[in-house]
Amino acid sequence: MLMKHVIMNSQLPLLCCANNCMLLASSRVFRRQRFLIRSFGGSIDHCRNSGSGKMQSVDVDDIIRAITPDLDQSRHKGQAGNIAVIGGCREYTGAPYFAAISALKIGADLSHVFCTKDASPVIKSYSPELIVHPVLEESYNVRDEDKKIISNKVLAEVDKWLERFDCLVIGPGLGRDPFLLDCVSEIIRHARQSNIPIVIDGDGLFLVTNHLELVSGYALAVLTPNVNEYKRLVQKVLNSEVNDDATQQVLSLAKQIGGVTILKKGKSDLISDGDTVKSVSVYGSPRRCGGQGDILSGSVAVFLSWARQYIKASGQDSNLSLKNPAVLGSIAGSAIMRKAASIAFSNKKRSTVTGDIIESLGKSLEDICPAGSSCL
Amino acid sequence: MLMKHVIMNSQLPLLCCANNCMLLASSRVFRRQRFLIRSFGGSIDHCRNSGSGKMQSVDVDDIIRAITPDLDQSRHKGQAGNIAVIGGCREYTGAPYFAAISALKIGADLSHVFCTKDASPVIKSYSPELIVHPVLEESYNVRDEDKKIISNKVLAEVDKWLERFDCLVIGPGLGRDPFLLDCVSEIIRHARQSNIPIVIDGDGLFLVTNHLELVSGYALAVLTPNVNEYKRLVQKVLNSEVNDDATQQVLSLAKQIGGVTILKKGKSDLISDGDTVKSVSVYGSPRRCGGQGDILSGSVAVFLSWARQYIKASGQDSNLSLKNPAVLGSIAGSAIMRKAASIAFSNKKRSTVTGDIIESLGKSLEDICPAGSSCL
Repeated sequence: MLMKHVIMNSQLPLLCCANNCMLLASSRVFRRQRFLIRSFGGSIDHCRNSGSGKMQSVDVDDIIRAITPDLDQSRHKGQAGNIAVIGGCREYTGAPYFAAISALKIGADLSHVFCTKDASPVIKSYSPELIVHPVLEESYNVRDEDKKIISNKVLAEVDKWLERFDCLVIGPGLGRDPFLLDCVSEIIRHARQSNIPIVIDGDGLFLVTNHLELVSGYALAVLTPNVNEYKRLVQKVLNSEVNDDATQQVLSLAKQIGGVTILKKGKSDLISDGDTVKSVSVYGSPRRCGGQGDILSGSVAVFLSWARQYIKASGQDSNLSLKNPAVLGSIAGSAIMRKAASIAFSNKKRSTVTGDIIESLGKSLEDICPAGSSCL
Repeated sequence: MLMKHVIMNSQLPLLCCANNCMLLASSRVFRRQRFLIRSFGGSIDHCRNSGSGKMQSVDVDDIIRAITPDLDQSRHKGQAGNIAVIGGCREYTGAPYFAAISALKIGADLSHVFCTKDASPVIKSYSPELIVHPVLEESYNVRDEDKKIISNKVLAEVDKWLERFDCLVIGPGLGRDPFLLDCVSEIIRHARQSNIPIVIDGDGLFLVTNHLELVSGYALAVLTPNVNEYKRLVQKVLNSEVNDDATQQVLSLAKQIGGVTILKKGKSDLISDGDTVKSVSVYGSPRRCGGQGDILSGSVAVFLSWARQYIKASGQDSNLSLKNPAVLGSIAGSAIMRKAASIAFSNKKRSTVTGDIIESLGKSLEDICPAGSSCL
């Protein structure tokens, strides 16, 4: 019954903040506000037994400040993050662009896209800031007898770069071509062998829902399902339907996939690695223009790689109670994305499009973690 | 004779407003102003018999506020509209982009373009916000013996998506290739079978003027002819020339095509479904840069789908006297487009281009129907 209460709380309206309920989206207000995440410590059993399911206030600002690296004149290109998006096919080009440019706007140094030959000139044309590799192939372009050779060639092209990446984003605009998805399965296996974190969204979720072994037990994987993608995951993994006990269900789901992190997008974002569940419900926007999930995946990738650096560097000295970089990166990515959406919406209202939100990522982070003073 | 008087009134100068004739386009003035549409209730016969042809003031603001959906954190992607533009060929790429991006800027969640393979990379490169499907084919690319197969393939590609769309815009940048137009005729038939509203502009009007059976009797079709397109329609349907009795003629035209809605663009926009005629003459711009018709078609598509949702939800409880979503969507689209053109012109004067008007769509709607207060 206590869990019911907690879940009800987790569905409180957005724009709820820790110290008060100021709803204004002005810059000064943003600066004064501190993020609230609601934390349901321990496993469901633990919550039930100990009664620890009561709402705790955890400050997302502190997480973001802790994991965001200082800017320092002595650092060199790549140290603040080298991200790669695997996606972009004949049909979809916007999604991988949104994910990759978001990574740069959060503060990564380098952002790559691995896409099909058809998608490459278009994605390149969106921005000269990205490094776009036209290496993926779709079935319509490959004869059956050439599939093995082409597949090996695709893998070799990606492998040349793989060790340099701090995180992969797999799925934005990937499409569902069977040959292409086979190649991407291999890329996931290689990334996993090299301990490279992966954020999986869009058609990447279609792939891993049907091939859970690709991510099962990999603690550096984050899955970012929307309502429909989550429903399919629950059906496949838990062999049940989505129920009202959202906190318990996302915990069970993450646990069942061996401790991957699930970032369930919704009115509140729920984040679980099978051990704990966090809910991020601050800020946000009521606009539902397509592409916001791509921003989130690119943002989570950067924060995940920063969180990993932070945990490695601080070890047991970390001031954060959370130690899982996938969870920390998901919380930070979710909060910064929601805040950027809120800033964009306050300016553009109904005509807000994804590009407007991307342009607000910098301010969203800067308000919490100013770069200026530390680096000059 | 009474009708003559009314028609003269309907051709009053632009920027005429309901309560006064302030011509300034400043934000404060816009906010205070309320749209005027002139309404000629009932059929021509009814007008003549009852004398109800006298000018009535109908508040467009109220229509726009009624049909524009509240923004709500619990809504999910697609609920505010999923629009598809059928257009874009080797020769024309700007028009379908203008229509599709306008739909997003009005507030639709998703906007697609179905175009030829040649047009696709260019349209994609204009904006990552659109989902562009390179599925249409032109004759130069298809052998006679393959036409049936290719045609079926095109239809299958569109059919995969069709049920998800709330409205199609058919015609911007479509071109007049016979094979392509044959495929589009089939798309119209399929959309009609599925009760999906269609807005027809540009070369789509060339197609339906020669094949009236495609839209005849379909109440969810809006035709948006300019002066020349209207002239051809009148010649074809009424077997006469355009005359000075514009109100009666547009009413007859709409009635003759079985109750489709005609949005006759001009100094004043005249809108009729064969039952009533409305004139929207507020605001506007004297700039006649190409592409404004494309903005209108994309805008009408969104408002039509919103009006349809509104009518379905409110039923007989609707506060609006008008019940035809095609007419409501046309009035709202016309007014918002004209106001956006006026805002853009007040800023850019002679150098106003279509992109400037598109960038003003958000403000144009926001001034009448603020998104902020309802959703936060």
